[in-house]
Formats: sequence, structure tokens, C-alpha cells
Amino acid sequence: MSQVKEITASSLEAKAFIQEKAAEIREIVGSGVAINALSGGVDSSCVTMLGHKALGDRLKTYFIDNGIMREGEPQQIVAAFKKPGVNVEIIDAQDDFFSALGGITDPEEKREAITQTFYKKVFGNLVKKSGAKYLLQGTILTDIDETVAGIKRQHNVFEQLGIDPQEAFGYKIIEPLVQLRKDGVRKVAQELGLPSSIFNRMPFPGPALSARVIGEATRERIALVRKATSIVEQELASVKAFQYMAILHNDRVTGMRDNKREFGQQIEIRCWDSIDARQARPTQLPFSTLEKLASRIVSEVPGVVSVTYNIATKPPSTMEAV
Amino acid sequence: MSQVKEITASSLEAKAFIQEKAAEIREIVGSGVAINALSGGVDSSCVTMLGHKALGDRLKTYFIDNGIMREGEPQQIVAAFKKPGVNVEIIDAQDDFFSALGGITDPEEKREAITQTFYKKVFGNLVKKSGAKYLLQGTILTDIDETVAGIKRQHNVFEQLGIDPQEAFGYKIIEPLVQLRKDGVRKVAQELGLPSSIFNRMPFPGPALSARVIGEATRERIALVRKATSIVEQELASVKAFQYMAILHNDRVTGMRDNKREFGQQIEIRCWDSIDARQARPTQLPFSTLEKLASRIVSEVPGVVSVTYNIATKPPSTMEAV
Repeated sequence: MSQVKEITASSLEAKAFIQEKAAEIREIVGSGVAINALSGGVDSSCVTMLGHKALGDRLKTYFIDNGIMREGEPQQIVAAFKKPGVNVEIIDAQDDFFSALGGITDPEEKREAITQTFYKKVFGNLVKKSGAKYLLQGTILTDIDETVAGIKRQHNVFEQLGIDPQEAFGYKIIEPLVQLRKDGVRKVAQELGLPSSIFNRMPFPGPALSARVIGEATRERIALVRKATSIVEQELASVKAFQYMAILHNDRVTGMRDNKREFGQQIEIRCWDSIDARQARPTQLPFSTLEKLASRIVSEVPGVVSVTYNIATKPPSTMEAV
Repeated sequence: MSQVKEITASSLEAKAFIQEKAAEIREIVGSGVAINALSGGVDSSCVTMLGHKALGDRLKTYFIDNGIMREGEPQQIVAAFKKPGVNVEIIDAQDDFFSALGGITDPEEKREAITQTFYKKVFGNLVKKSGAKYLLQGTILTDIDETVAGIKRQHNVFEQLGIDPQEAFGYKIIEPLVQLRKDGVRKVAQELGLPSSIFNRMPFPGPALSARVIGEATRERIALVRKATSIVEQELASVKAFQYMAILHNDRVTGMRDNKREFGQQIEIRCWDSIDARQARPTQLPFSTLEKLASRIVSEVPGVVSVTYNIATKPPSTMEAV
């Protein structure tokens, strides 16, 4: 378990970094094949381009459709990578993920179920199919910090927890971005020629929308939070914020519709100002925006009678609720 | 089951109303004794003064300390009524209420447990002790509307649900304010000489702080929401709003403290602009106020890592969450 040496965004020389990491990847993979999973986030997008630069077609890139992505996300991401010549194959694994998530309410158990399904089941099959011995992934330093500190178990951190991926899953993991934080990754992504829609893309968690429901992540509850997420992302698209999100609560609250009591659902909105996700404070959105958000959510998301806006800072809050 | 005829605040002649209702109370009670429970809210305060005017010492007024009142509330209210010469006796019934609330999470079952404990157990004993045949209470028209519509079962509505209090509890209920809404009651309270701290007092629900916790209302959870309520009431005291409150959620959310993960609690703040509680919208509080509230709550209320502000309107929300 080696200590990772941080490269700060200000000291990072993106061009040299890319050359160096591409050479390292070529050396490790040799004449073999590597695979990676693209989620569309800046980290995995950056690793995809870096791996493509290093290995060309010997990198097989998959988009795992786990059923917990946002509206239209699989198609948009595949299309975005077609332009620079990267072929991405969509793998429909919705049933695997929903059956693994069934009955689980604890956030850490949820993350663990997704991790196991992703790395063992879905990736296990892809590795067999592709003949790859290496998995490229976009772990960054903040993932490791938070996992080691015990704040959140990031889905992509193993070595630092004493897990040997070779032994556990049958393949080796290469993590070229592990010395960087989000701001450094953005510089590399830009240098790699990724469109700004990707390198300026808002962070989105590994467990995707399952991290956006408190309690069990069923197909029905994911559909509700997906709808609320679309509304929040539409309404806040022009806001300069680090990250914004909708969270479906498990608690029921009393509401009324058509003059009848409705014991309904609650959506929480979070919108964060932050530099590097280590500290954050709520964005001071105008009340007209908050009211528009609430009004659209209660009318467009079935069963929702109440909407809140998070006003606490990180710490003691975290960016995500789950 | 008779239809109640509304008296609007604008058409209300408070002085004449008081004369008329006092005469009615005297006629019904005759030479007997009546009792009433003072909660300190404008409705029960108004009924206490009206009953005192009608019956003098033949009205016995009790403050039921159910363990779910706000910080220092029993003492403050007894002191406030000492001035106009009304003696209020505090009845410690905390054990009765907490044992009735044990294990209950559904809002309507919670209300029902409080109703039963209040009217049957605690009031049953007081009626025997005092020899009273009549209970005066401050039911208003909105309570009846909401109960009949099935939105919320107000703790003090019986006749409209087909319940005969005489049969169910052993005493008759007199409701002199039943034609008024909140704004009308305030006019009567002012005319009766109640201090503005009472007649302008914010509405507070019958089930008190048990309506401010989602899920089970244990002693420990009530203590947390009581602390949060004090902070909200201190910080918003100068805000012109219809009502403000703190709500303890049952959902747990991820937070961090001392660099360690804390699966903590969430407090929701609601602050409503409204005329008569039938419709309401969130008060546009300055962000500096929201941040101050959040910062005090996460540091002063043990285990709370997240704070939200409600941004939905009524309908489809209701003022209270429970």
C-alpha cells in the first residue's frame, strides 16, 4: 500500500502528464488488451481518451447501462465519443443492478452492492469476453482520501482498503489519474481535446441515481428521482455552481391535493458552491428560481407534495446525501 | 350534525361576539363547573379568557404538560395568565403521553394517540376530580374543514366525525370559537385584553412537538426537535411570517465530522407567509439568515449534519409535515 503523491492543478503540466501516463499504460498493457467503463463523468471520460491515445483499438470501452443513469445519458455519451473516433459499446445490465439493490437501504451496503455487481458480475463477464487483463479506471485522489478516512466508500477504491483486484475480480486495475483532484483532471481533459460539455461536466456519483434516493433504490423510485433530476438540471443549467442534484427522501410528509390529504413524498434539492469538493456551501439561488423548481417538481413528479433546499455547509454535510 | 355558519374576520364585531358567547356559556353551564385546557395558543387562550369572563372561578383551567411542549412553555404561559387573574394549574402527564406515543410512526395514529390520552385518560381524571360536566375548547372553523375534508384529523374535532363526547368521554364540549378562523380569533383575543404576545402568537399544532418529528416521537427525539425549535424561533423572531418551525426527519443522511463519516440526522425548516393558513408560500428569507440557522443547528443540536429549507407552497404541501 503505497502513498500516492499529489499533483496539484497549479503545478500540473497537462501535456507532459498525458505523454507520461500514455507511455506507462502502453508499458503495463504490452501487446494485450485493456477495457474500461465510461460513465460520461470527467474522470472516466479522461481515462477513456488517455487509454485510447495509448492503446488505440486495444482499449475496449463500455458504457454499462445499470438502470440508474439519468434521462438519455447512455445515448448522449456514446454519441459524444463517436466524434473523436472512440467506439463505446452499451451493455444493458439493468436487471443485474436492480436485483442486487433490492431490499437495501443502508448507503454503504448500496455502494457495496453496486461495486460487487459492477466489478464482479458485469465486468467479470466483459473481461472473459474481451480477453482483457487490465481495467483502466478514473480513480482520483479525493476518492481515496474519503474512502481511507471512512467518510464514503468510493466504488473504485480497492488497494488502499487492502483488496487485491487481481485476486478478487481476475484483472489488474490501472489508475492514471490517481494523483490528481477534480481541477487537475479538468485540465488534462481539456488538453486531451474533450469537449467542454465533458470536462466541465458536473460531478455525478459512481452509484448514480441510487445515491440520490434515501432508502431502497427500486425501479419506481429511480424513475421519480430521474424526473426530478431532469427538472433540476434544466432549471439550474445556467447557474454557476459546482454541482446540483435532486434527492428523493424516504420519509413521507403530509400534503393535500384536490382538497384531500395525500401522505406524499419529498424531494430535496442541493446546489453547491465549491472549488474541489472538500468544502462546500449552498449556492445562493434567487427565490424565484427556488419557487420555479418547487412548482415544477410538485406538478411533474408524481406523488411529490414537498420540496426543500439544502442550506447546510460541507462539513458537517457531504455533497451527496447517500 | 349541524352546518357551522362562518363569521369572517371583516364582518366580526368582537365586543358583541364576546358578550353573546359569554352569555351562551353561562346559560349552558348553569350553576355547574367547566374545565378547559390551556395550551398557550391563541385559540385556547381566547377560550380561557372568554370562559373566565363567563364563569369566573367556576372555570378550572389546566395546562397539560404532555412532555412535547417547547422549551420553558408551561411556566411562561402560567405566568402570562397570572396577570389578568386567571389561575392555571400545571398537570404533569409526560409519562402518559410518551407511553401512548411509543412505537407509533404514522401521523394520523400519532394524533389519535394524543387525542385519546388527552381526552380520555388525562381529562377523564380531571373531570372526575373537578366535578365538571363541561369542557370548553378552542376549535376553529379551519380545524373542522380540514378534518371533514380528510386532510388532517384535528385533535379537537368530534361532532363532525359522528363522535359524541358525552358518550365517549363523559362530558360535554362547548366550542365558542367554532364560527371563526384564525384572523377572527385574533380580533377577539385582542378585545379580551390578551397581550399581543398571545394574540399574535404563531400557530402551534395540537400534537405539539410530536407533529414536528417524522417517525416515532420518543423523549430523545422530542428533545432534539425542541432544541432546533428554540434556535429557529430565536433567529426568526423578528421576521414577519405566519408561522415558522423546525422538523426532525427520520431519514438519515451522510455527513462528516472530525474527518469521519457520520450517518446523521436532518432538520427541515419551514417558514410560511399566509393570511389564514388555507394557502401559504415560503417566506423569502435572506440567505444570511438561512446560513445562520443551518450553522447554529448543526453545531448546537447533537447528531444533526444537514439542514433544509422548505420551498414548496400549500397546496400541495401543508403547513405541518406530520
